[in-house]
Amino acid sequence: MSDHPISRFDVPGLDDLPDDIRDTILAVQDKAGFVPNVFLAFARRPAEFRAFFAFHDALMESDDGLSKAERELIVVATSARNQCLYCVVAHGAILRIRTKSPTIADQVATNPAKADLTERQRHIVEFALAVADRSADITDADLDEMRAKGFSDDEIWDIGAITSLFALSNRYANFAGIRPNDEFYSMAR
Amino acid sequence: MSDHPISRFDVPGLDDLPDDIRDTILAVQDKAGFVPNVFLAFARRPAEFRAFFAFHDALMESDDGLSKAERELIVVATSARNQCLYCVVAHGAILRIRTKSPTIADQVATNPAKADLTERQRHIVEFALAVADRSADITDADLDEMRAKGFSDDEIWDIGAITSLFALSNRYANFAGIRPNDEFYSMAR
Amino acid sequence: MSDHPISRFDVPGLDDLPDDIRDTILAVQDKAGFVPNVFLAFARRPAEFRAFFAFHDALMESDDGLSKAERELIVVATSARNQCLYCVVAHGAILRIRTKSPTIADQVATNPAKADLTERQRHIVEFALAVADRSADITDADLDEMRAKGFSDDEIWDIGAITSLFALSNRYANFAGIRPNDEFYSMAR
Amino acid sequence: MSDHPISRFDVPGLDDLPDDIRDTILAVQDKAGFVPNVFLAFARRPAEFRAFFAFHDALMESDDGLSKAERELIVVATSARNQCLYCVVAHGAILRIRTKSPTIADQVATNPAKADLTERQRHIVEFALAVADRSADITDADLDEMRAKGFSDDEIWDIGAITSLFALSNRYANFAGIRPNDEFYSMAR
Amino acid sequence: MSDHPISRFDVPGLDDLPDDIRDTILAVQDKAGFVPNVFLAFARRPAEFRAFFAFHDALMESDDGLSKAERELIVVATSARNQCLYCVVAHGAILRIRTKSPTIADQVATNPAKADLTERQRHIVEFALAVADRSADITDADLDEMRAKGFSDDEIWDIGAITSLFALSNRYANFAGIRPNDEFYSMAR
Amino acid sequence: MSDHPISRFDVPGLDDLPDDIRDTILAVQDKAGFVPNVFLAFARRPAEFRAFFAFHDALMESDDGLSKAERELIVVATSARNQCLYCVVAHGAILRIRTKSPTIADQVATNPAKADLTERQRHIVEFALAVADRSADITDADLDEMRAKGFSDDEIWDIGAITSLFALSNRYANFAGIRPNDEFYSMAR
Repeated sequence: MSDHPISRFDVPGLDDLPDDIRDTILAVQDKAGFVPNVFLAFARRPAEFRAFFAFHDALMESDDGLSKAERELIVVATSARNQCLYCVVAHGAILRIRTKSPTIADQVATNPAKADLTERQRHIVEFALAVADRSADITDADLDEMRAKGFSDDEIWDIGAITSLFALSNRYANFAGIRPNDEFYSMAR
Repeated sequence: MSDHPISRFDVPGLDDLPDDIRDTILAVQDKAGFVPNVFLAFARRPAEFRAFFAFHDALMESDDGLSKAERELIVVATSARNQCLYCVVAHGAILRIRTKSPTIADQVATNPAKADLTERQRHIVEFALAVADRSADITDADLDEMRAKGFSDDEIWDIGAITSLFALSNRYANFAGIRPNDEFYSMAR
Repeated sequence: MSDHPISRFDVPGLDDLPDDIRDTILAVQDKAGFVPNVFLAFARRPAEFRAFFAFHDALMESDDGLSKAERELIVVATSARNQCLYCVVAHGAILRIRTKSPTIADQVATNPAKADLTERQRHIVEFALAVADRSADITDADLDEMRAKGFSDDEIWDIGAITSLFALSNRYANFAGIRPNDEFYSMAR
Repeated sequence: MSDHPISRFDVPGLDDLPDDIRDTILAVQDKAGFVPNVFLAFARRPAEFRAFFAFHDALMESDDGLSKAERELIVVATSARNQCLYCVVAHGAILRIRTKSPTIADQVATNPAKADLTERQRHIVEFALAVADRSADITDADLDEMRAKGFSDDEIWDIGAITSLFALSNRYANFAGIRPNDEFYSMAR
Repeated sequence: MSDHPISRFDVPGLDDLPDDIRDTILAVQDKAGFVPNVFLAFARRPAEFRAFFAFHDALMESDDGLSKAERELIVVATSARNQCLYCVVAHGAILRIRTKSPTIADQVATNPAKADLTERQRHIVEFALAVADRSADITDADLDEMRAKGFSDDEIWDIGAITSLFALSNRYANFAGIRPNDEFYSMAR
Repeated sequence: MSDHPISRFDVPGLDDLPDDIRDTILAVQDKAGFVPNVFLAFARRPAEFRAFFAFHDALMESDDGLSKAERELIVVATSARNQCLYCVVAHGAILRIRTKSPTIADQVATNPAKADLTERQRHIVEFALAVADRSADITDADLDEMRAKGFSDDEIWDIGAITSLFALSNRYANFAGIRPNDEFYSMAR
């Protein structure tokens, strides 16, 4: 177990937290067996904690349109582009679980063009990377192209929205130096 | 008044919205005299609407540590870097109001290095642009440098957090093609 | 009225100028009601002053082929790419006057892909940005494509030439720190 | 002798030119033994021809402050950065003549950091490349640094101005496809 | 076991190989339990096979100056920069073995600035990334700085040389589409 | 003759070298009339010397598929992209010899898009530059496109392999500061 700090900012003790936030943290600990550090790092700012996890759950806990695995694929691909260690390691683990593939997360994080993706997955990743890297250049024609490839407007929105949320999340983790728990590295290998 | 669409995605009618979202929209219309398009564009996704504006209010509606004007300065500088038309135009107007300066928003949006900024404002903008552009490179030393310049940990967190929120917001506005209301362009000139 | 210096270099007094340069400056003051700072900043170098304004007038004061509004559109789009505060602010004002649109200059300066442009305007801006950013890559095929879109050789030359002139102008304004007059910011809003 | 076209645009015959432009061209032919293609390519636009060569002569034909060799050094370094074949080849030849060095032009064009430059030459090249590549970032402090290295304000202006002129010249040559005369390649080797 | 092709180019059968190459391949299979695909992919070109593995062994099989673990660290850091899936996955496994750390390879590949490195390791990685990304800018002063940090000339050469070798190796693997063996992903986790 | 050092690292005397390396150096001196500095710079590392020149000869001394001139064309184009002074100057000379053209090396080094290339040469250079700059993005489709243009698999491999070898060579020459012999600059002009 590492003794490196989990954030560059103070992390409050569980006893100092508002009830709802402590409850959320205890629930995730129950389920995962450990507390992912992002919960502890955000806890110093209850309003941001609540908004962030509300955003997260709205976009990541659904199989409507995009599957949960496809949603994690977007997170890993765009977080790797932003070199966010926390998100690549933590969501890489979740992607391995969701896809039952021990290799896809490392592939997508290292070089999406070389990953073993279906055509649909490839379209999702390419659109997500465009939103991550050069959203200013996206035109009506890009959306029409996604529609022509068979994506619904809600699916396109979801790809853009998940990428946007992790543009936020990656930057928080990077400026605050949020450290991934050691547990994530070896999960579902 | 422009007749261009305000988003590339369907915008629900007020009558079709959950009560809390309709109430929020009517309240902002009452206060501003018009409904900023970002409210209408997000309304098709109530959960994201609620999370986004909760995030926004937590970070932008405070004079604690960073002043409201400084918070808007971060938004304009980083949104210009991301070429987000909605955020530059809408928050440019708010920045003019908050600072009572008719020129600072255009200066910061065009070239922060040439803007009439105080030394403190310049430090804020430079750290914000680093988080916007190359958050992966931020080290402990960068935070220590900000502390040495007189910023508290909460102020540093706020600069990083606001930049992160608008990394999200800029990408949403860019992929969804959210159009700034014409009213913003001439406000507080 | 700002008391910031208008240039990083000494600005000669009107009485110390050659007659033709003083006459030019007095004429523009008569017409505009103020002296744009670029005239004063260039005045320390009479030969460069004469060459620059001769170049400017040859390329900007014509409705032959490209309209004057189209010429200003090129200036604002490419000057924004080069983050030249003087040219974006001063020519943004002229573009608003020429187009009678209070919004187009801010749109083009912030994100040309989101600006309310006609198809012809869009082609002009895209070719101009290619010359501004990556002129080395322009091939015979790019010119043929412009011809196929209906542009004459003289129009193509003008787009390239105006972009080239402001590649010069933007760099002069940037290294010399030429400050836009406050009057420009609010003109024709 | 190459039979490739010297420009992507029509080149007028000598007989069709205004007298002053024909005289200029004949004079350079007398002196150099051939007509550098830039004169012919610009001749289709007499006003731009006159402004360009007036600018050129004002900045390049002087040993006041910067030597003529130093001025050519700026041209070769920045034109290589802009990948302008005409200017690298033609001004590379002139730089060899001015410096009496058969190797410096190829060195500066390929990699300025590896060129055999004096400390003063290195400072000149570095400031010129900053103006060529990222003029928006130049601050008062950069000018103060140049002054501390012993450069006068007029020398600093000249470095910036020559770089600006060739930012123009490089883009003209690149969009118009102006071809360097074969004679330049082997001059002063 | 994957049934994806291991290269975009034909891979010769063992029986068709020169004796020395077949012997090398059988020896590595004996030792590792499988044949890393890079051996098979290079086998179609015996002369390049021999030169590549001679280069590799000269630089990677030594604890003189740089330790073997430090050598692998250079490979993983620079191969991640070049997005070479083969080298990141295969040498990531070797780095885990050499360092006995299950996390360092993923850290260095995702974001070297966030990796748990000693000061010496950090200096090595930073110099290696400079050689990988912008070798043209390396000056005498950069070498002097490394010497001042305690590195011998042979160590500096080794960092540069290993980075250079994997600049080659990464490009081979990328253009030829060499696929990492599935075995590497889970080794030494 | 220059008195600048030929490398940033010690260069052994001929007498201190292993026999095979001394013999190689004497042979090249016999043939060329001088010893290219790369031989002397590599001599401090006999194993790397042998591997490098074995690689070099395997890829550069053949007219099978790609001609020797085409191989040198790849070297000059990609070495210029990497700003490697040694390789541009030395292989520029060889390219002039192989093509009997006094201008092609300077053209390709300065701006490949403006060089007088045949269609086949242009395809070779474009693929080589893709491998040099962005090999991670190369897909199966890029190889199919080369095949459709008439290139055999062995030719495509050779373009990729030569580019990879000089990705190595350029970085060695850049970090070690290997200086091109003055003789190369004027050869075959």
